[in-house]
Amino acid sequence: MSGSVQGFSRRAVLGGAGAGLAAGATAGVLGGRAAATPAASAPPALGRTAVPFHGTHQAGILQPQQARVQLAAFDLTGGDRSALRQLMKRWSDTAARLTRGEPAGDHENQIATDAGPCALTVTFGFGSSLFDRIGLTAQRPPALAPLPAFPEDALDRARSDGDLWVQIGADDALVAFHALRVLQQQAAGTASLRWQMSGFSRTPGATDRAMTGRNLMGQVDGTNNPKPDTPDFAAKVFTDGPGWSAGGSYVVFRRIRMLLDNWENLPTDRQERVIGRRKSDGAPLSGGTESTPVDLAKQNPDGILAIPADAHIRVAAPASNGGAAMLRRGFSYQDGLLPDGSLDAGLLFLAFQADPARGFVPVQRRLARGDSLSRFLRHEASGLYVVPPGAAEGGYVGQGLLDG
Amino acid sequence: MSGSVQGFSRRAVLGGAGAGLAAGATAGVLGGRAAATPAASAPPALGRTAVPFHGTHQAGILQPQQARVQLAAFDLTGGDRSALRQLMKRWSDTAARLTRGEPAGDHENQIATDAGPCALTVTFGFGSSLFDRIGLTAQRPPALAPLPAFPEDALDRARSDGDLWVQIGADDALVAFHALRVLQQQAAGTASLRWQMSGFSRTPGATDRAMTGRNLMGQVDGTNNPKPDTPDFAAKVFTDGPGWSAGGSYVVFRRIRMLLDNWENLPTDRQERVIGRRKSDGAPLSGGTESTPVDLAKQNPDGILAIPADAHIRVAAPASNGGAAMLRRGFSYQDGLLPDGSLDAGLLFLAFQADPARGFVPVQRRLARGDSLSRFLRHEASGLYVVPPGAAEGGYVGQGLLDG
Repeated sequence: MSGSVQGFSRRAVLGGAGAGLAAGATAGVLGGRAAATPAASAPPALGRTAVPFHGTHQAGILQPQQARVQLAAFDLTGGDRSALRQLMKRWSDTAARLTRGEPAGDHENQIATDAGPCALTVTFGFGSSLFDRIGLTAQRPPALAPLPAFPEDALDRARSDGDLWVQIGADDALVAFHALRVLQQQAAGTASLRWQMSGFSRTPGATDRAMTGRNLMGQVDGTNNPKPDTPDFAAKVFTDGPGWSAGGSYVVFRRIRMLLDNWENLPTDRQERVIGRRKSDGAPLSGGTESTPVDLAKQNPDGILAIPADAHIRVAAPASNGGAAMLRRGFSYQDGLLPDGSLDAGLLFLAFQADPARGFVPVQRRLARGDSLSRFLRHEASGLYVVPPGAAEGGYVGQGLLDG
Repeated sequence: MSGSVQGFSRRAVLGGAGAGLAAGATAGVLGGRAAATPAASAPPALGRTAVPFHGTHQAGILQPQQARVQLAAFDLTGGDRSALRQLMKRWSDTAARLTRGEPAGDHENQIATDAGPCALTVTFGFGSSLFDRIGLTAQRPPALAPLPAFPEDALDRARSDGDLWVQIGADDALVAFHALRVLQQQAAGTASLRWQMSGFSRTPGATDRAMTGRNLMGQVDGTNNPKPDTPDFAAKVFTDGPGWSAGGSYVVFRRIRMLLDNWENLPTDRQERVIGRRKSDGAPLSGGTESTPVDLAKQNPDGILAIPADAHIRVAAPASNGGAAMLRRGFSYQDGLLPDGSLDAGLLFLAFQADPARGFVPVQRRLARGDSLSRFLRHEASGLYVVPPGAAEGGYVGQGLLDG
């Protein structure tokens, strides 16, 4: 099985910086899923879809969301920088193998041997605490400063933060589980799981269109994501530095529980005014279709703002936040019943950005105060991680930091 | 959107009793997934796949396992038989609509409107407690007697039992979630959720073959299921009565946690001797391929039994249990970390059978004592429900009991 995305040359996917990066990014976004099309008549097209691990950026940022995600954080059990280096080498090697559909190694417990890679991506991040732990405090990027406390935060620190962060996505749940187990086994003696959560997105082929995600509230979610073919896309998502982190990103993770019983008691037209978009197709209340730019100034004939002053898309809009933008890649979660009998369900929010101070932080500051959606949400866990640039073949993720 | 499975006439799927039933059953098993093949070039083939709700048997027994399952039990909040009748009518009507890909109703909260039914099935069961609650103790089938306690059971009663049981399967997680939410909303005032769990199976297209399931231990699981084209299949799975339950079944549910850290410490050859099958392809250790009948008497050249005396497939074999057989339809689950730091993961075991006293009970009695696999498993929740026969169009599930 080839490691390249079918229909796109490895070169195109790996891309370069600047304009080349934008082209590469587009191939990355379209490639993973488009690869299934030419061979749709063969049964395992979904299984065969392969996303290269190596590249300018780590995989799992620009690719379409897979049907299943595993999120996990690990804490180092010691402070040994060289053990961490060995682990990142081994994890990178394993992720590259698994994303090609190869076994992870000779002694590995085979779980999902009968499937292809199913668009598997494995993405690694480093938390702020890691830098203290391994004696590299001076190398910690300033952008990794702790997120401020936001009003209404109800964070469980045991399910927040962590030295190492891993995002595993695949279109088959067993493939994603298998990758998690292999990484966990390989970490034994060096790092142990701090928290782990599972989420889901749509199954390829379930819907009729190249779609934006839909969350458990039934709302189209992610429409206003920055587009890879726009000139400032890379500047919004990928960092210039310092040094070892150039070409990387910062990911903000929030476990956001949805108060679905309250939400579903609202009639659809009131839900739409809370969001600012039509529920059926995601079109903004200022008119048009899902992709029509939001007109925040538009007034209805009665002089009332078409998109209410406290509507989610107004408060979250870049225009309301000095141009702040981030690439959201959230997955839904559902974890049984809470003690009060309601479903424990919501959004594993993930957003990639060049600088949280110009992305998540200003947006969430406004949302926590002025967004009418916020009364239906509870932020229960949180994390901020630097996502190192992608590894070249033969290299490993984090090499610029750990070999430095 | 048509309610019939493409490529199979509605008549064939609805089938009849006896020989007709076996033919219908086969169509049901093959139809749901096979339906995707003729239209594989159109993007939403997976989404369009529709499994009829109405029929001799309820849907969700004979169909291939979907990528996602929702399991839930409800308890009646009152003892009103007529309110239950109204709920079962409404649930049946809603399930029929959703499985055709139609909205559930005018006032419903639309969540997954942009997908087809994605092979959605909704299956209802009645627990023993229901019959007392609605004053129909005399109509409770003897086969619904409580399961005996088994050695090593560690059951959480809050996540066991329940008056009403619902199994929702779909190839898209949001479609399954949507169906659960709609049923939950419709139950308000009549029944409330007692417990809820989510599980997964393989995504269609992930693997190369018409496959038996593979569990989180990496083992092929379900090979020895009774086959719908064998003459005694219906007698093993569907009950003859009494009266209102004829054509129905009994489902045993067990939440079985897997001690994966212990399991994965075993080398593959020892795992294979615990199970009695090869891990890579599920072939029995007595030789052949996955579908080769197990030869329990086969000895290796050294005179040792090829399938060890305490191997799972020997202890569970019908030949070891007076012919006891059941149709297993289990899903994997994974629910984050336990307090000891291990993954809370395993199998949502489901088995349909004509009579638990000739199915699950004798097999589990032997497994709990003599199965070398049992030391890697913990049974943490349990349920037994009568699964009424399917509803005809215009009727509802449980009508024979509740209109009686």
